Amino acid sequence: MGSETSREWRFKSRPVGLPKHSDFELATVKLADPAEGEIRVRNHWMTVDPYMRGRMNEAKSYAPGFELGQVMTGGAVGEVVASRDPNYKPGDLVTSMAGWREVFQGPAASVGTQKLPPYPIPQQAYLGVAGMPGLTAYVGLLTLGQPKPGETVFVSGAAGAVGSIVCQIAKLKGCRVVASAGGADKVKWLKDRGVDEVIDYKALEPGPMPLIKAVRAAAPKGVDVYFDNVGGDHLTAAIDSANPMARMPICGMISVYNATSPPAGPFNMALIVGRQIKIQGFLVFSYFDQQAAFQKEMAGWIQSGQITYEETVMTGIEKAPDAFLALFSGGNTGKMLVKLA
Amino acid sequence: MGSETSREWRFKSRPVGLPKHSDFELATVKLADPAEGEIRVRNHWMTVDPYMRGRMNEAKSYAPGFELGQVMTGGAVGEVVASRDPNYKPGDLVTSMAGWREVFQGPAASVGTQKLPPYPIPQQAYLGVAGMPGLTAYVGLLTLGQPKPGETVFVSGAAGAVGSIVCQIAKLKGCRVVASAGGADKVKWLKDRGVDEVIDYKALEPGPMPLIKAVRAAAPKGVDVYFDNVGGDHLTAAIDSANPMARMPICGMISVYNATSPPAGPFNMALIVGRQIKIQGFLVFSYFDQQAAFQKEMAGWIQSGQITYEETVMTGIEKAPDAFLALFSGGNTGKMLVKLA
Repeated sequence: MGSETSREWRFKSRPVGLPKHSDFELATVKLADPAEGEIRVRNHWMTVDPYMRGRMNEAKSYAPGFELGQVMTGGAVGEVVASRDPNYKPGDLVTSMAGWREVFQGPAASVGTQKLPPYPIPQQAYLGVAGMPGLTAYVGLLTLGQPKPGETVFVSGAAGAVGSIVCQIAKLKGCRVVASAGGADKVKWLKDRGVDEVIDYKALEPGPMPLIKAVRAAAPKGVDVYFDNVGGDHLTAAIDSANPMARMPICGMISVYNATSPPAGPFNMALIVGRQIKIQGFLVFSYFDQQAAFQKEMAGWIQSGQITYEETVMTGIEKAPDAFLALFSGGNTGKMLVKLA
Repeated sequence: MGSETSREWRFKSRPVGLPKHSDFELATVKLADPAEGEIRVRNHWMTVDPYMRGRMNEAKSYAPGFELGQVMTGGAVGEVVASRDPNYKPGDLVTSMAGWREVFQGPAASVGTQKLPPYPIPQQAYLGVAGMPGLTAYVGLLTLGQPKPGETVFVSGAAGAVGSIVCQIAKLKGCRVVASAGGADKVKWLKDRGVDEVIDYKALEPGPMPLIKAVRAAAPKGVDVYFDNVGGDHLTAAIDSANPMARMPICGMISVYNATSPPAGPFNMALIVGRQIKIQGFLVFSYFDQQAAFQKEMAGWIQSGQITYEETVMTGIEKAPDAFLALFSGGNTGKMLVKLA
């Protein structure tokens, strides 16, 4: 083994509104030999996800944010290249939260290291379809949304890492799926996967009314489950078309993450009383007890071809901020990844 | 028995915004002898409730509205004075949905007639604390809110028919209760019942920020359960102070029922993701399976003095629209009732 260098991205300044390149700083660190109890992992892939935007804000007590001047964190998959921990040996493939860097070195538990399950799917799938975004789709749709065959499921951000899986699981469960995504390529990708109706929201006039009308037309029997990745006008439109007892798992609200003034909330919130609508925000971290069952089921769906997925890949640690920033302009279909080695 | 007359309120015109006197019309009807299978009930009390405002709008498919030109409906309690139905005899006390009239005559089932349970509480209590408003408080707080001892429960519209019961049940369950109500009399009434902190929202400057600050100050450990009768800025303030996994049963949004332009939704909806907040609209009609158990438990709480309640009474069928309209200016403490006989 011996000494080695690693490049890593540090959090340099808190963004106001959309993050900028200058909020990140690439540093090179020299690694000593691993100490007793430590492992060294060469990351093959790292992920960028919308939730990281929230971690760039001033820390709230319930969800620690990124610390200024410190290396950033996030999902990564890599290979153990040196180990002074009896639980790991060189060659082991692992996931961890030690993303945003080429090499991690330290105690395995400090970054939530887990060995990959034995399923014959590509290792980077554990950062997307079989990883946190996939589990988010799975628990949000099935545990919170409780869709029944024949019901209508409306999904926003439907071509993203989470939304694209929600759409496909909903189809597997016999639902009618109405999706919203931005741009003709994404619309086609979703149609090719059997999604019943796809709204190209970027082709609509701005404001809630055009989207409200589009959802009414695409879901004439109303919406039973709304899986929200977007918030804003999409949530307003979902409430407008909601059926009695509709369930709305709220995974994210990317439309407002970079807002610098208070965004308008849904003007039709009062409808949730008469329609007995349930709107439920959730974080995947609260549902890790379902991870093992999910990975097994998802690996089966991938192998049988029942679930397919897209990746948008940028290569090289230098590209990590570009990949992250592209999330906010819709620059990805499916999972956005950075290939490191 | 023989013929008799009854006065009844008919729905004359759909209001835009706040209802007016001229939206109602008092008519006198002459009743023939009851036909086979019919009962005649002399109403002693009728109730007016905020939910009736929604029924004055154009009908939605899932909740039939009032029909123009027809007699209005709502909760009532009265005495059977004639019966050609073997299940009822003169002297029986019954509740029904045949309010807004002095006398009901027709098939018992057509207005949801039920005999009063045997508990020694005043008959009009079955229109309030032991009736639909009480059951609303009970299922909303306990079934949906799931409060734990020591948690903070925030209640808006806290001096109303539902809110006043929510506050007291929450105290019985060992919670810290923060209430919002309008005016010094209501504040005192709630304080006298052991509510820990009462915000007089009418004494605040308008807009969400003063209320947000008041709730932060009154609930320094955050809000675990928010029981919403009001919507608008109160919901925004509850979201602002919500703890992780907060539950928000939404019973009503009286602040927006008369809105003629789209009201502003909560600008801070995005907080529901990270805090995993559940916002759940509900109607008491979906929880009638809990009615018998509720009435038994509530009658016990009333007899033991653990729950006390206030009534605001107007007398005479002529006063029904006045009583109803007063709901929207906060003219009641506790249940608003009309005494008919």
